Amino acid sequence: MEIISDSGAMQEQARAWRTEGRTIAFVPTMGYFHQGHLSLMRYGREQGRRLVVSLFVNPAQFGPSEDLDRYPRDLERDAGLAAAEGVDVLFTPTAGDMYPSGYQTYVEVGELSRGLCGASRPGHFRGVATVVLKLFNLAAPDVAVFGEKDYQQLRVIQQMAADLNLPVRVVGRPIVREPDGLALSSRNTYLSIEERRAALSLIQGLNAAAARAAGGERRAEALLGAARAVITASPLVRLDYLELADPDTLKPVERLQGAARLLTAAWVGATRLIDNILIEGD
Amino acid sequence: MEIISDSGAMQEQARAWRTEGRTIAFVPTMGYFHQGHLSLMRYGREQGRRLVVSLFVNPAQFGPSEDLDRYPRDLERDAGLAAAEGVDVLFTPTAGDMYPSGYQTYVEVGELSRGLCGASRPGHFRGVATVVLKLFNLAAPDVAVFGEKDYQQLRVIQQMAADLNLPVRVVGRPIVREPDGLALSSRNTYLSIEERRAALSLIQGLNAAAARAAGGERRAEALLGAARAVITASPLVRLDYLELADPDTLKPVERLQGAARLLTAAWVGATRLIDNILIEGD
Repeated sequence: MEIISDSGAMQEQARAWRTEGRTIAFVPTMGYFHQGHLSLMRYGREQGRRLVVSLFVNPAQFGPSEDLDRYPRDLERDAGLAAAEGVDVLFTPTAGDMYPSGYQTYVEVGELSRGLCGASRPGHFRGVATVVLKLFNLAAPDVAVFGEKDYQQLRVIQQMAADLNLPVRVVGRPIVREPDGLALSSRNTYLSIEERRAALSLIQGLNAAAARAAGGERRAEALLGAARAVITASPLVRLDYLELADPDTLKPVERLQGAARLLTAAWVGATRLIDNILIEGD
Repeated sequence: MEIISDSGAMQEQARAWRTEGRTIAFVPTMGYFHQGHLSLMRYGREQGRRLVVSLFVNPAQFGPSEDLDRYPRDLERDAGLAAAEGVDVLFTPTAGDMYPSGYQTYVEVGELSRGLCGASRPGHFRGVATVVLKLFNLAAPDVAVFGEKDYQQLRVIQQMAADLNLPVRVVGRPIVREPDGLALSSRNTYLSIEERRAALSLIQGLNAAAARAAGGERRAEALLGAARAVITASPLVRLDYLELADPDTLKPVERLQGAARLLTAAWVGATRLIDNILIEGD
């Protein structure tokens, strides 16, 4: 595995592979790998593609009061894990390379970026869309793989790829969870033991709603109420949002018809966590 | 020459050429070709590249009270001119193909889009940057060629290409003028005989400033005054802007040091025209 930190060298390597007729899979990450990241790499590695993983804690997607500075980092450990997954290039650009002096171009995906995490984190998806577009132009992938934990991010990137005619297929892969159900996240390392226990209420709340739906409940209000009761039961948890949304447009739905996505974000102590599940209607 | 109107077919053709190891030159236009467009095609055709010319009157770059509906169009004539220049593909997408239902992604280049035409035409450069990025993704050029008449547009696209790590070289080519100096523009067809005569004051004003600079004048205020006096002499002409700007940042300069760009926009009757020249200092 090669570690490339220069964006020009990354683009040259991708171009050379393309000229040889290789296809390229790409997994953009902020590092501090867990099994969720590794599952994306495994998917990307299939079908004989070259596999590029980027590791970049992107300043443009953090708000001024967010956790950019304390976001967990361990390049040595990450490099070992990536190499073991058969990654060909670990791309680790610097912020100065990605956003040089005079930088001024940003991409915005409209409606999809507005609600949910977009409402709580102004500018977040603008930063995400912009850096992912830059990374796509550097790594030149045929396929890019994202986790469904950041479901809104996945939809934003898929919409951007379609709208901008990007020659890349954007694939979402299932959330990987701890045995007790907690969605894997690099931010779980922030949690104290008590918070770790309280954080379980997110998936338990989502599952409570899914159980009500399986029992025939179709009213969004009732499903959300069932989830909310569980999530907010712990005094350590403060709900940010909880919504039942169309899986494509992410617009709120009043009644469950076909599939919908149930999405939540909550503060557990000082840590903001997100989770979501698919809920099937008729 | 092939005429392709489907964006998927355009992207397939470009990909096929790339796989064969071909390089691609691209000239994006709104059609109604004049010698300025043809000079860009001639430049693109050099060096053995495949040459793609797009013809798309892009709704996203017109304001609600602008001339989208009456912008001159003549596909048959344009196709004949392009074929004679050795164009390989004339790409003529529809608005519905470029902006399908649910479209919601836009690119903005910040500082460079704000002044000059950006101040007079809010949203214009957002529409330009977005459509050009889409066209780049469809035509997959190594080189894209733009005219310097739309100098701010050229700088916006160059900055976008650099900021987004686009694998394309964005080249600006000199303005082509009528024998009397009027910059060629598809919008010149709007002018009456009197207006056509009055429109000459734009380049005459710019040249008056250049003459003052050649005589040693370095103060922007004096150079602008010389140009303004000529441009506004005709009652048919109403000045929109006149600025002496840094050729890279387009920020106004107070004194001529090295090269600067002198840019103007003016209404001649109901037609808005633009022009610019390079002015050399020491």
